[in-house]
Amino acid sequence: MAQTVEEKATAAATGASATERFQVDKTHASDTPPERVSMLARQVLEAVHATIREHQVTYAEYDALKAWLIQVGADGEWPLFLDVFVEHVVEEVANADREGSKGTIEGPFYVPDAPAFSAEATLPMRPDEKGTPMTFHGQVRAVDGTPLGGALVDIWHCDDDGFYAQFAPGIPQWNLRGRVTADENGNFTIHTIQPAPYQIPTDGATGAIIRAANWHAWRPAHLHLKVSADGHQLITTQLYFPGDPHNEDDIAAAVKAELMLDPRPSGDGVDVEYDFVLDPA
Amino acid sequence: MAQTVEEKATAAATGASATERFQVDKTHASDTPPERVSMLARQVLEAVHATIREHQVTYAEYDALKAWLIQVGADGEWPLFLDVFVEHVVEEVANADREGSKGTIEGPFYVPDAPAFSAEATLPMRPDEKGTPMTFHGQVRAVDGTPLGGALVDIWHCDDDGFYAQFAPGIPQWNLRGRVTADENGNFTIHTIQPAPYQIPTDGATGAIIRAANWHAWRPAHLHLKVSADGHQLITTQLYFPGDPHNEDDIAAAVKAELMLDPRPSGDGVDVEYDFVLDPA
Repeated sequence: MAQTVEEKATAAATGASATERFQVDKTHASDTPPERVSMLARQVLEAVHATIREHQVTYAEYDALKAWLIQVGADGEWPLFLDVFVEHVVEEVANADREGSKGTIEGPFYVPDAPAFSAEATLPMRPDEKGTPMTFHGQVRAVDGTPLGGALVDIWHCDDDGFYAQFAPGIPQWNLRGRVTADENGNFTIHTIQPAPYQIPTDGATGAIIRAANWHAWRPAHLHLKVSADGHQLITTQLYFPGDPHNEDDIAAAVKAELMLDPRPSGDGVDVEYDFVLDPA
Repeated sequence: MAQTVEEKATAAATGASATERFQVDKTHASDTPPERVSMLARQVLEAVHATIREHQVTYAEYDALKAWLIQVGADGEWPLFLDVFVEHVVEEVANADREGSKGTIEGPFYVPDAPAFSAEATLPMRPDEKGTPMTFHGQVRAVDGTPLGGALVDIWHCDDDGFYAQFAPGIPQWNLRGRVTADENGNFTIHTIQPAPYQIPTDGATGAIIRAANWHAWRPAHLHLKVSADGHQLITTQLYFPGDPHNEDDIAAAVKAELMLDPRPSGDGVDVEYDFVLDPA
């Protein structure tokens, strides 16, 4: 079901070029004041210095670090590495004060402007798309319980082999990606297949440090979502499936108890329900 | 005397391509055990997480960090950034137990295999080389005072405009670079010109963070040296000139009191003396 390291390496090698592999949102030009840039940079550099002193880091290790940092860029993996190992804390800080649904990391595989659908939608998929059929339905509401008619549910997830359209070769452009507009009562129903757990790409510098540190590369199966409505804060989140062995040790540290689905058998597949509650803007 | 930001930017723009700009020593393949890689990586990542939490780093700032890390690689500046902001601590750890001469950072501008000279040498320079003529002489000894005949003094430094051969255009390949073999008593005499203080390259990502943090980019004037002899530990060091305003706030934090020269007027130039004491291998 899930891809092997070798399969993913082959996919990446034949896929997009390194520099195009992950996109970066440069629209957020930061106007952070110099005092804050200086303080943040010094604090991180001083932590690096303290680690070198405490653990007597050698020149050979420093040279290996230098070569690895160069390789992260050469492999186009800064978005991957940061979204896996850092974003969860940025998300925790950004969404700490929300009353509504919990968020979690966006990760590096989002693509804006997926095809648009009305409230009952079947995501784009291949005629012979592998995997367990899944119907995902729910309602989008305000914190006070008011249904948010016309809310937008932007969903993307990997296929039954753990691959994302536009990040692995041979998959149609918008496969398992869509923007679904809820009905006047905020309700939506999305027909798709159940995503698979997968290893993050391990053929580049991110995989190199995972192997060097003897970590694992697994993420539990999940749906990605961005849910929004006029006058409300957009929430970026993921939903998980009970029983996945990597719910407990997700490499991206993005699983939260509030984001666990409760799949029920339905026909030859499963039915899952999840309601989203959006904070006011 | 020293270059301006604009001059350096022009030099860099017309110089070597970004990926060739600084070399990395990959001969030190690190065989660090996975437990150590994991511990070091986790400690640094946890310090980044703590900084994000403590200072409520935003998604806009996270996106700016991501774009900046990509730019460091695109500009070929990982060696520059790391040698300026991190290497001094690696050097401190590596050389803490030496009895002999103090070391300091190598920096990103060393090139091996410079032209070889006997014990009294004039470094390669242009017929009209600008700057104050300088004679640098000294002796290489063991810790017990024994002269180390045939010791190798590998010297490189910038010109009177603050530029290094092979890192700025229009300078002959080995200008102000040479490997001088001391005589049978360990003595050497090197004729060259006095180097200038300079700003590290500010046209790339390293300069971008320096500006964003409102830091300065200056290094005080210095000679670079690698001194070695059979049966002894090589020392990589730099020598500085009293009165340079950036001896106190070197951006690379590489100045040490023991590395200060004492120039004396001599003819139309200066005479400096420094003896090197090498630890046993």
